[in-house]
Amino acid sequence: MINREYLAMLGNKSVIRELSEYATARGKEIGYDNVFDFSLGNPSVPAPESYRDNAIRLLQEEEPLKLHGYNPTQGDPRVKEKVAASLNARFGMSYTGNLIFPTSGAAGAIAHAIRCVTEPGEEVIVFAPYFSEYDQYVGGAGAKIRVVPMKADDFQINFEAAEGFFNEKTAAVLINTPNNPSGAVYTEETLSRLAGLMAQKSEQLGHTIFLISDEPYREIVFDGKKQPYPAKFYPHTLTCYSFSKSLSVPGERIGYVAVSPDCEQADKMVPMMGQISRGTGHNCPSSLPMLAAAFCLEDTSDLSVYETNMNLLYDTFKELGFTVPRPGGTFYIMPKALEEDAVAFCKKALKYDLVFVPGDGFKAPGFFRVAYCVDTEKVERSLAAIRRFVETEYPNR
Amino acid sequence: MINREYLAMLGNKSVIRELSEYATARGKEIGYDNVFDFSLGNPSVPAPESYRDNAIRLLQEEEPLKLHGYNPTQGDPRVKEKVAASLNARFGMSYTGNLIFPTSGAAGAIAHAIRCVTEPGEEVIVFAPYFSEYDQYVGGAGAKIRVVPMKADDFQINFEAAEGFFNEKTAAVLINTPNNPSGAVYTEETLSRLAGLMAQKSEQLGHTIFLISDEPYREIVFDGKKQPYPAKFYPHTLTCYSFSKSLSVPGERIGYVAVSPDCEQADKMVPMMGQISRGTGHNCPSSLPMLAAAFCLEDTSDLSVYETNMNLLYDTFKELGFTVPRPGGTFYIMPKALEEDAVAFCKKALKYDLVFVPGDGFKAPGFFRVAYCVDTEKVERSLAAIRRFVETEYPNR
Repeated sequence: MINREYLAMLGNKSVIRELSEYATARGKEIGYDNVFDFSLGNPSVPAPESYRDNAIRLLQEEEPLKLHGYNPTQGDPRVKEKVAASLNARFGMSYTGNLIFPTSGAAGAIAHAIRCVTEPGEEVIVFAPYFSEYDQYVGGAGAKIRVVPMKADDFQINFEAAEGFFNEKTAAVLINTPNNPSGAVYTEETLSRLAGLMAQKSEQLGHTIFLISDEPYREIVFDGKKQPYPAKFYPHTLTCYSFSKSLSVPGERIGYVAVSPDCEQADKMVPMMGQISRGTGHNCPSSLPMLAAAFCLEDTSDLSVYETNMNLLYDTFKELGFTVPRPGGTFYIMPKALEEDAVAFCKKALKYDLVFVPGDGFKAPGFFRVAYCVDTEKVERSLAAIRRFVETEYPNR
Repeated sequence: MINREYLAMLGNKSVIRELSEYATARGKEIGYDNVFDFSLGNPSVPAPESYRDNAIRLLQEEEPLKLHGYNPTQGDPRVKEKVAASLNARFGMSYTGNLIFPTSGAAGAIAHAIRCVTEPGEEVIVFAPYFSEYDQYVGGAGAKIRVVPMKADDFQINFEAAEGFFNEKTAAVLINTPNNPSGAVYTEETLSRLAGLMAQKSEQLGHTIFLISDEPYREIVFDGKKQPYPAKFYPHTLTCYSFSKSLSVPGERIGYVAVSPDCEQADKMVPMMGQISRGTGHNCPSSLPMLAAAFCLEDTSDLSVYETNMNLLYDTFKELGFTVPRPGGTFYIMPKALEEDAVAFCKKALKYDLVFVPGDGFKAPGFFRVAYCVDTEKVERSLAAIRRFVETEYPNR
């Protein structure tokens, strides 16, 4: 029979996608340049030239049978070794190639990591605000997502609330830093405290709770800072990465899981992921795009534009009286709406051709997400529209 | 908790992989050229130059943000349109782009197709001999595989046995033609009879039984013949394809599902697959490799070597007294072993540095698979070894 669950999903259109479609349609009326579309988290700067050069060089120089041939179930050894070496050099880790599992982006990485460390029916804790696709990754593995309410003043972790979410069914904690949608960068203090809590709960509950750390925005951190590496704080960590943002290649679907050397059963994890791939029909990521990335692991697109955009928007929102934690990274900012209902707020913004996403889907009701992965010139032009919107609709704010 | 099911799978090493590892190890002793490794179905001819040229041209000419950007959930429209047009021209179909779902190879295609047309607990009928990874694809979707015993004289479908396998839980039939491991090409007669049986059973059981047709070897057919297109025979067909064999790019993981225009709920299927992808973290195939293939849909590697190899092996096996149906396509041949226990037979062959795979894993006990996707020169050298093996071990055959 046609699967009823998936059939039913066709009715639930994603709010982000609806807004993005609205923006595209409106763009056809007034020119897309005049729509301030802040709906989608799609990189706006091109891939670095080194990525293209590597891909062309591989196509020209490598034997096609080898370049395009099947990878071993656990991934191309060259890619695994290079990723391990790069992480070790950057973060003082001691990965070996066999602890790296190349995947189809972070989505593939998280889907594999969750299947690895959960039994169906077990629970995965996430902290609001969080990327709503996590519901799919966790649900697809047969596990249950438990959402800790947000800490609205700075979007770090709400530890007071978190305590009560751990129980005998807790298999893993899934974090995302730098964070989509809030732009928060978890501090050393946050990560230390989380590690302490997880160690204590593991001890108390008599089983290891795993940390799944989703880090596609790792390279987009502002003010000259760096994202503290979560796996340094907690041994039982599966680090999930995507090259989508750092190299601006989201369509190539390349990323990896890095299993921490001191993780419980570390040596079993990647072989298990190889098995998991068989059932999802997912297998390894594409050879050529993945290998090209492995030859430019230290490169990124020019990511500075995101910081420029953030400052323009942050300053304007502050000036207009918004409550808005300053993002530490990513290409998102999440201010508090000027009325309780962020959906109503975002609807009013559309009249000014401003496309924002209500925070409700990220479990951040009352807030809205602004994805500023757009040209700075457009961000600059949007500021007047934001001002007009706010001053007209909320004169007594 | 670490998932016990996947952990347990680590114990079950694939026989094919074990044999392949043996061949590699033995190769280190005596030189891999001297190991007649017929274990793996890995293409042995390079990708056509047009594939490389397309990939390089795209990298040089396309805007990187567009080339490497996110695809829509249901796939790149350019790819979808081109695949539909090519199938229509070749097979007289009337696909539109929205009926094509680009996937990560045939594995991804089958995994999506099964999830689309089964509910957990329902059954999928396959015909022995069959590619053993189907167990994973079907099991991964929560469905149950039912194996119809083989028709050993020609490896077409055993219709007498098939009748009894249909019941109220039957959701789909999964076929693979040209067939791995037997090399059989299902005839028009076979496909007509199968369509008739499925229509009759659908009517009788009161629900549509879907046909999932796995066709990665579609372009490797011998004697100047063509594979009749299964979707022409039965309307409710999901055709699964991979470019791995036709373009010799198995590592790039590119393929598609084509939903027949007259399939029940045809217009819902691709949107459902878009939803299914979210839970497996699989998403679309990689942009660049997929788009490069879409620009050379009518090209293939030089596949003639497989027919040359087949004839050399077939003639030798016949001459030595084997019972062996002549393959109509693929790069496999599956003779009957010279003793009842094909595992014992294949073990003895190893003494002559001949690496064959016992048919047991393909539910073809007593037979063995020879994957002749190797250089013709090596096939030629192997014939003397085959002869020596057979004459020494089975002098009274």
